[in-house]
Amino acid sequence: MGFELSVFEGLSAFPVTPSNSDGVVDCDHFGKLINHLDRDGISSIGVLGSTGGYMYLTTEERDRAMCAAVEAAGNTPVLAGIGALRTNDVIANVRSAEKAGAQGLLLAPVSYLPLKEADVQSLFEDVAKATDLPICFYNNPTTTNFNLKESQLIQLANAGTIAAVKNPPAPEGKFTEQIVRLRAEVPTNFCLGYSGDSSISGALEAGADAWYSVLAGTLPDAAIALWKARNDTDKLIALNAELSPLWALFDAHGSIRVIYEIVDMVGLGDVKLPAPLLPLGADARHEIEQALNSIKAMEDKAI
Amino acid sequence: MGFELSVFEGLSAFPVTPSNSDGVVDCDHFGKLINHLDRDGISSIGVLGSTGGYMYLTTEERDRAMCAAVEAAGNTPVLAGIGALRTNDVIANVRSAEKAGAQGLLLAPVSYLPLKEADVQSLFEDVAKATDLPICFYNNPTTTNFNLKESQLIQLANAGTIAAVKNPPAPEGKFTEQIVRLRAEVPTNFCLGYSGDSSISGALEAGADAWYSVLAGTLPDAAIALWKARNDTDKLIALNAELSPLWALFDAHGSIRVIYEIVDMVGLGDVKLPAPLLPLGADARHEIEQALNSIKAMEDKAI
Repeated sequence: MGFELSVFEGLSAFPVTPSNSDGVVDCDHFGKLINHLDRDGISSIGVLGSTGGYMYLTTEERDRAMCAAVEAAGNTPVLAGIGALRTNDVIANVRSAEKAGAQGLLLAPVSYLPLKEADVQSLFEDVAKATDLPICFYNNPTTTNFNLKESQLIQLANAGTIAAVKNPPAPEGKFTEQIVRLRAEVPTNFCLGYSGDSSISGALEAGADAWYSVLAGTLPDAAIALWKARNDTDKLIALNAELSPLWALFDAHGSIRVIYEIVDMVGLGDVKLPAPLLPLGADARHEIEQALNSIKAMEDKAI
Repeated sequence: MGFELSVFEGLSAFPVTPSNSDGVVDCDHFGKLINHLDRDGISSIGVLGSTGGYMYLTTEERDRAMCAAVEAAGNTPVLAGIGALRTNDVIANVRSAEKAGAQGLLLAPVSYLPLKEADVQSLFEDVAKATDLPICFYNNPTTTNFNLKESQLIQLANAGTIAAVKNPPAPEGKFTEQIVRLRAEVPTNFCLGYSGDSSISGALEAGADAWYSVLAGTLPDAAIALWKARNDTDKLIALNAELSPLWALFDAHGSIRVIYEIVDMVGLGDVKLPAPLLPLGADARHEIEQALNSIKAMEDKAI
């Protein structure tokens, strides 16, 4: 009984996974990107999430990437994205995560044929039965096509099937209402976290337990500054304003396409999304460079 | 110049792909299902479409299935579903299709990260450059999350990048309007086909060039009867009425979940969708059995 700090809480950094045009992961490069995140202020590293392109890699390449990640992460816990279209492949990813030494699992109900509530229920129950690692419901309707009802989330939380949720931005930005509503129904040590960097300041102000961050996976200092300001509304608003040019680009192009450009721009090496996902054009790249200047000013201000 | 009958025209039958819980295809069983479709009235066999669970199989298993399919198809041309998240995997599937002897390619712009128009353009251009086989745009927004604009379809058709489209039901059932609109803009030998069995009678009445049919892949006689009645409105309506209990189940549960049950019920062997996709329950199975009785009456009437 009582509280224990969940591995899913805090600022979780989601790096990209460098791979070549055949889908072979560059584990040396990946290790360097991961190692860069083993620092104070980063609570965990979320590998093979959407930013990490998990769905574009084979089970074998994901296994290689997982090993490289945990080795490079040092003292920082690794959360492993295990989603796949088939339950047997999800379980294979669980085994990779366990073998490598990941401390938590991120499970998205990915689909080709749209999943029904009962399918998703069986998926989470089957995976929970197969492992002792805690599971976070990776709720991302834009990519999975599955709209998780709060009633199902609450059921899974109370059954002990999941220990956390990574939610997309609350409907109409009403984070406080959603957090209050869910907290009243889930166990006290259940972790209510959010992704969606461009509207994350609302979640931080509302007292979210975790920020699953694309930004933190490549520009950790900026994300750490924003996370640390979460209990100081004025500072949070000021820092978030400096990030707003980047958030606008995240909204316009999708955060993942933008962050792939940034990895290269800030000298972390050349990475490419798999074809047919095209890189951004010259205009967008120019806007990203300007946004990076604003972030640099923000980091200086935060010190 | 002039007309030539496209391999994509006519009634195309989409069978299921039997596989075990590890995703290994049962090529003997698959061959039997395919062989059952090599008959008058079936213009082509669409293997590894949505019904064939292509996205749930590895590139290697798809290669095995493709070989088995062409071998079993006899005189009936095989259309090969080649969609995948990565372009390099799509190209690998093209090579499997070429090697096996498929006569046409079905390419769906499947996604995890939502695709933009330019991504899809590059995908189709890259694949067309890599092969001499004709390509059908497999347009299925429910599973791909990509909404093809008619402007892009027309551009791809006129550039010779694609030879056919497999469209979902026309918006608001206005098949005639859509067909007239598209015919005015695409080359004369471009094939305008539809899927969506439950509303296909509207497409047939409107003069669609092709019906890409889930029903035909398992119950070819019923589909052949409906297809043959396409120029006889009274007969078309009468036969379609007999199928309406099945169409209602297709709409309620998705055609694919229903057809997997039917394969078993009509003695074509035990097949299962991959977990986490659950089989239908006892109530739905009972309704399917009743719908099959209605279809049997329809087949007798059609003779």
